[in-house]
Amino acid sequence: MEKAYTELENIAKAAKTASKRMAYVGTPIKNQALKNIAADLLSNSNAILAANKIDYSEAEASGMNTAMLDRLLLTEERLQGMAKDVLTVAELPDPVGEIIEMRTIENGLQIGKKRVPLGVIGAIYESRPNVTIDIASLCIKSGNGCILRGGKETINSNIALAKVIRGAIKRAGLSEEVVQVVENTDRALVDRMLKMSNYIDMIVPRGGAGLIKFVKENAAMPVVAGGIGVCHTYVDASADIEKATKIVYNAKVQRPTVCNALDTLLVHQDIAAKYLPSVVSELNKASVELRCDEKSTAILQNCGLNVKLNPAAEEDWGKEFLALIIAIKVVGSLNEALDHIDKYGSGHSEAIVTENYDSAMRFLNEVDAACVYANASTRFTDGSQFGMGAELGISTQKMHARGPLGLKELTSYKWIIFGNGQIRG
Amino acid sequence: MEKAYTELENIAKAAKTASKRMAYVGTPIKNQALKNIAADLLSNSNAILAANKIDYSEAEASGMNTAMLDRLLLTEERLQGMAKDVLTVAELPDPVGEIIEMRTIENGLQIGKKRVPLGVIGAIYESRPNVTIDIASLCIKSGNGCILRGGKETINSNIALAKVIRGAIKRAGLSEEVVQVVENTDRALVDRMLKMSNYIDMIVPRGGAGLIKFVKENAAMPVVAGGIGVCHTYVDASADIEKATKIVYNAKVQRPTVCNALDTLLVHQDIAAKYLPSVVSELNKASVELRCDEKSTAILQNCGLNVKLNPAAEEDWGKEFLALIIAIKVVGSLNEALDHIDKYGSGHSEAIVTENYDSAMRFLNEVDAACVYANASTRFTDGSQFGMGAELGISTQKMHARGPLGLKELTSYKWIIFGNGQIRG
Repeated sequence: MEKAYTELENIAKAAKTASKRMAYVGTPIKNQALKNIAADLLSNSNAILAANKIDYSEAEASGMNTAMLDRLLLTEERLQGMAKDVLTVAELPDPVGEIIEMRTIENGLQIGKKRVPLGVIGAIYESRPNVTIDIASLCIKSGNGCILRGGKETINSNIALAKVIRGAIKRAGLSEEVVQVVENTDRALVDRMLKMSNYIDMIVPRGGAGLIKFVKENAAMPVVAGGIGVCHTYVDASADIEKATKIVYNAKVQRPTVCNALDTLLVHQDIAAKYLPSVVSELNKASVELRCDEKSTAILQNCGLNVKLNPAAEEDWGKEFLALIIAIKVVGSLNEALDHIDKYGSGHSEAIVTENYDSAMRFLNEVDAACVYANASTRFTDGSQFGMGAELGISTQKMHARGPLGLKELTSYKWIIFGNGQIRG
Repeated sequence: MEKAYTELENIAKAAKTASKRMAYVGTPIKNQALKNIAADLLSNSNAILAANKIDYSEAEASGMNTAMLDRLLLTEERLQGMAKDVLTVAELPDPVGEIIEMRTIENGLQIGKKRVPLGVIGAIYESRPNVTIDIASLCIKSGNGCILRGGKETINSNIALAKVIRGAIKRAGLSEEVVQVVENTDRALVDRMLKMSNYIDMIVPRGGAGLIKFVKENAAMPVVAGGIGVCHTYVDASADIEKATKIVYNAKVQRPTVCNALDTLLVHQDIAAKYLPSVVSELNKASVELRCDEKSTAILQNCGLNVKLNPAAEEDWGKEFLALIIAIKVVGSLNEALDHIDKYGSGHSEAIVTENYDSAMRFLNEVDAACVYANASTRFTDGSQFGMGAELGISTQKMHARGPLGLKELTSYKWIIFGNGQIRG
């Protein structure tokens, strides 16, 4: 292992050194690097797909389930999609160098904040190889170095992608050391990586709750984490039944395996008898499993729908299902809904459906989460949907950045001060 | 100790609960709370000064040095100064509720970021009791709860101040639980406090390098730290001698015990023979101890000044002196100065003195520090100097906030999204 530790140390050090120059590279060079990556993804598709085939075969042989296999699969078409995403990042404005809040203070000093890169971003993530391209693109555009530690299931794909990225950015005039992939996926190297606060300025864990907890507890550098989305939609007494049915169906069914999908539906008691049969009838068409509290069970048992009802257990509240499962609870008031969300939410995405102005404004004001919606599906919590291009992840913490992490969220600032001899009295 | 742990847990929990309501209290109530504090500091001066007298006598008896004793001393005049500072915070704009980057995206969703408090701020600090008032004022105005753990030398003063603060804010209609003081100064309670990530959203250590390192390594919640200032001023070949002399004298002498005071002077070789005698002759009047590299020693030995020169040791580079000591080095170029600062600086405040446009711009662009100056004293790095009112500290890290921590830096944001039935396709 000593050799692997030394190699890790070397690539981290190389990323840090390269990141210093990267901090003031001009936008055209960074954009050219991204365009080269997009082109090279396609012109090197044979090598990439061959490496991906090795990962896929091994995963298949090890008995990986179909959904996971699909996540790691690359195809010519998916490479085209990835190339397109890289070009989208190239088209976004460069956050580096933006100068904000510049002003002249009484003594004549001109002071302001200038946006600068963070330095080196470490990313720890699982399965999907397109994440390698997303993170590298965002880091290049925002002037950061990156150290990518993907899952062992996609290591061959990631090594092939890194080779393409490094060649492409070198041709644009950047140091290839800006993008590093940890080729040895031994878990002990993750532990070591988390201690390298000299070389890594921020670490982003993407994956399950276990990984995130481990990284938060062990990282010596700042962590931006999130991803765990226990998302509620509250249907208020005054909600429009049709709108509320469509929003809840979309939030639960359109893509149930992601963090911004709906987990718990809260329904005001005054509308429950009318609304629940409407929404459950739709959810039932998509075979969504229902876990209901006593009040919703009573309504649904007597409404004439032939659906299977499971009693909700205490652990169903506050659970991220990542599947076609929904927990349903009838509440007596907006206050009860707010209390439930405060107790069980993970601070990711929460929504109210209401036609009442005051209820909407109170919900938006009082719910403490990264993204709070009135009358829309929580599925919109996504960097590309918010117009930020790709995203490095979704933060559910309050420090530094909250919600989707785009280019600006990968920067810091420094105060720049222009004087002409000022001294302090 | 079990009882003390339980008490700490209780006050942390109370602060967290109170902070939730505090997040949407209106500006007039918060401002009234601050005005009450300012008034009560003066009307309760007898009780506060009596408590401070106990601290002072105990510190004096324990042999504390004069400078430290002065830091913990409160007087009627100092209380007036503190009251005035609280009123300044009341006059600053309320950062909470500010809505930024609001826009309508293609599907008609109106999305933007709304500034919200962080929650509960934990502060760990030493000696000066006015810090208790500064931090409480900033937290109240920014809608945060706070847990204040001051040094044991000032515990009686802090308890008396907290009593005044809690009474004053209660009268304005706020929960007194918003401001908590840890009355038991046992170090074991700090360890326990650092694990309370359920109740404390951000921790700010103010003090020596040892405290900051300990907090960074042991805190379960995000830390914003800094304060360690190894500050350089580089006098370029083209510098105006008089300007450079005044700036360096001010940065070193005006208040040598603080983090933004000058530590190392770097001088371009082309101006060293002319500049060094000028600045050293001034520094000598203030009895500044000189620690010189070989080249500066050679110049100063032969310039006719009668000053004591000490050879600089390797550990003098990158040292925060906090005293009337300066390290001096002659460099061959701007690049050498930049490399020296990159290697030895702590990322706090760095300055160049130059009449050359390109040197100034390169220095401002390339130096990686919280505050980078052209032609001014580094002593300006300070929340009040920057027009931010008081400050919770000065961050030398890149995440979340860099430089002085004012009201805005004590906030986060949440995305708010106004829809009218949008679902994701």
